[in-house]
Amino acid sequence: MTAITRRGAGMVALASLAGAALPAAAQVPAPAPARLGNPGFHRFRIGSLTVTTVSDGVAQRQVEGFVANAPLADVQAVLAESFLPTTTYTAGYSVTVVETPRGLVMFDTGTGTGAQMAPTAGLLAANMRAAGIDPARIGTVVFTHFHQDHINGLTTRDNLVVFPNAEIVVPAAEWRFWTEASNEASAPAPQKVNFANVQRRFAPYTGRIRQVEDGAEALPGIRAVASHGHSPGHTNWLVADGSDQLLVMGDITHWLELFARRPDYQTALDFDGPAAATTRRRMLDRIAADRLRIAGYHYPFPATGFIARDGQGFRYIPADWSA
Amino acid sequence: MTAITRRGAGMVALASLAGAALPAAAQVPAPAPARLGNPGFHRFRIGSLTVTTVSDGVAQRQVEGFVANAPLADVQAVLAESFLPTTTYTAGYSVTVVETPRGLVMFDTGTGTGAQMAPTAGLLAANMRAAGIDPARIGTVVFTHFHQDHINGLTTRDNLVVFPNAEIVVPAAEWRFWTEASNEASAPAPQKVNFANVQRRFAPYTGRIRQVEDGAEALPGIRAVASHGHSPGHTNWLVADGSDQLLVMGDITHWLELFARRPDYQTALDFDGPAAATTRRRMLDRIAADRLRIAGYHYPFPATGFIARDGQGFRYIPADWSA
Repeated sequence: MTAITRRGAGMVALASLAGAALPAAAQVPAPAPARLGNPGFHRFRIGSLTVTTVSDGVAQRQVEGFVANAPLADVQAVLAESFLPTTTYTAGYSVTVVETPRGLVMFDTGTGTGAQMAPTAGLLAANMRAAGIDPARIGTVVFTHFHQDHINGLTTRDNLVVFPNAEIVVPAAEWRFWTEASNEASAPAPQKVNFANVQRRFAPYTGRIRQVEDGAEALPGIRAVASHGHSPGHTNWLVADGSDQLLVMGDITHWLELFARRPDYQTALDFDGPAAATTRRRMLDRIAADRLRIAGYHYPFPATGFIARDGQGFRYIPADWSA
Repeated sequence: MTAITRRGAGMVALASLAGAALPAAAQVPAPAPARLGNPGFHRFRIGSLTVTTVSDGVAQRQVEGFVANAPLADVQAVLAESFLPTTTYTAGYSVTVVETPRGLVMFDTGTGTGAQMAPTAGLLAANMRAAGIDPARIGTVVFTHFHQDHINGLTTRDNLVVFPNAEIVVPAAEWRFWTEASNEASAPAPQKVNFANVQRRFAPYTGRIRQVEDGAEALPGIRAVASHGHSPGHTNWLVADGSDQLLVMGDITHWLELFARRPDYQTALDFDGPAAATTRRRMLDRIAADRLRIAGYHYPFPATGFIARDGQGFRYIPADWSA
């Protein structure tokens, strides 16, 4: 049994973070996909489609200060209900890949190779390799929204293309907002960074970016469901094969253990907190009523399951691996 | 993406089942651990100990007739609450391996290589290989009880030793019951098969079998917790490192989605249904109150999490992979 210690893996990741002056290849974290060597991909089927969730790693945050409109003790009580640590939390990044008759479709792109956003993230390339998914085979990249941890994986640190053969599908409302420079002045301070980052990350893909309006299809069977609030044009995608459906969620709830159980919690990660909370409750209500299977970007890996109404909010039921 | 079709994997498993006349090596199922190529092991830590759950595969059962003391419609409603199929269910077999200062300790042994009990089980050897765990390195095998799906992995179809260097630790009460031939006459009909099977599977290990009484230790930090009912000497094992603990569960609940949510449900899999139900409620109460982490043999893979009180019974909260 190869025992990769936490300390050991952490040191490699930190060295990689500090290594901005190293050659590009050396910046890609070398260790196994997860700190204990756990696999970083998971496959299931929706109708005849094969779906793979692929982990880009995790990041740690402080619980204190994360929820703007609830006392820390209440937030910690909700975490303890789910048997989670109450001072820091570790949330993942999971990309969803669907094998369709029109080729491989990837939803969002992770935080970027080379630990661009966190020493324990940026592992998408390694986990895609383990899953046998070649970035050159991705035919379509579909975005839920344009926050950095969703779009940075489009390009390397040097802003080179990662998906050489992909068409890029973007929610039209999201594209219009972030590409209009006059919106920057009125955007919340933590969100201003996205204007320049959107310009930078999409530039190498100029000429193959397609905007899709709410309710329209990215490809046959993949339909946009507007869910604005977390970002101005945030969009879920409903993947259907016959009567089988999967809703690819983006950030309707950042972290299920908090925001599904308490849908009214608001966080500075949301562009518009009250609008995000309204959208969250509306979408979770629909998902629970329709018994929709979901795949979620920040959900506990392998990041797919169901939502049921429960008490003041909702609870997440991870899909049974065997079922 | 290597798409292993269900049909393809099923054919390999069936060929292997039918191949009793093939050389022994050919009887080990060759396909990937799970039908979609999902990994069949998962690592986590308890204190400084590394724990790995390893899947032996799954088996399918009919829901109808499975619960003896509740109407089918009620049982199906409980399943639907967990977003599971309501006519058949697929339950897994997961073995727990703990890396201790005294060597590798394995709890129970799966259904046996070569699909001895189900065409979709018997995958332990392949998944141990994937996890880097050599059967020759197992220093201790500890049993929860002696039902076939827990002990058959001790030996091959030809009853040859699978763990050449292991001491075998058994609950003393379980050993006394099944090795006393005079108990067979009064045992429930579906349980009678175990008397001969216990003789057969343990025979190649004669001379290295150690009985442990309730409350005593199998090894330092691994203590027997009597939990009789599902079988006459059924025993959980509490693994501790400092203040961190893991309860290795065996079959206190066969299938969480039914028997944790409705602890009073009884099944023909239990040796003594009423005693099993009493033990189940008592143990689940303790696990919930003490917030114990558990690893369970038939739980949804990766088969480790927590138990909370919920309504008429309890609910299972899978451990967060990232936490």
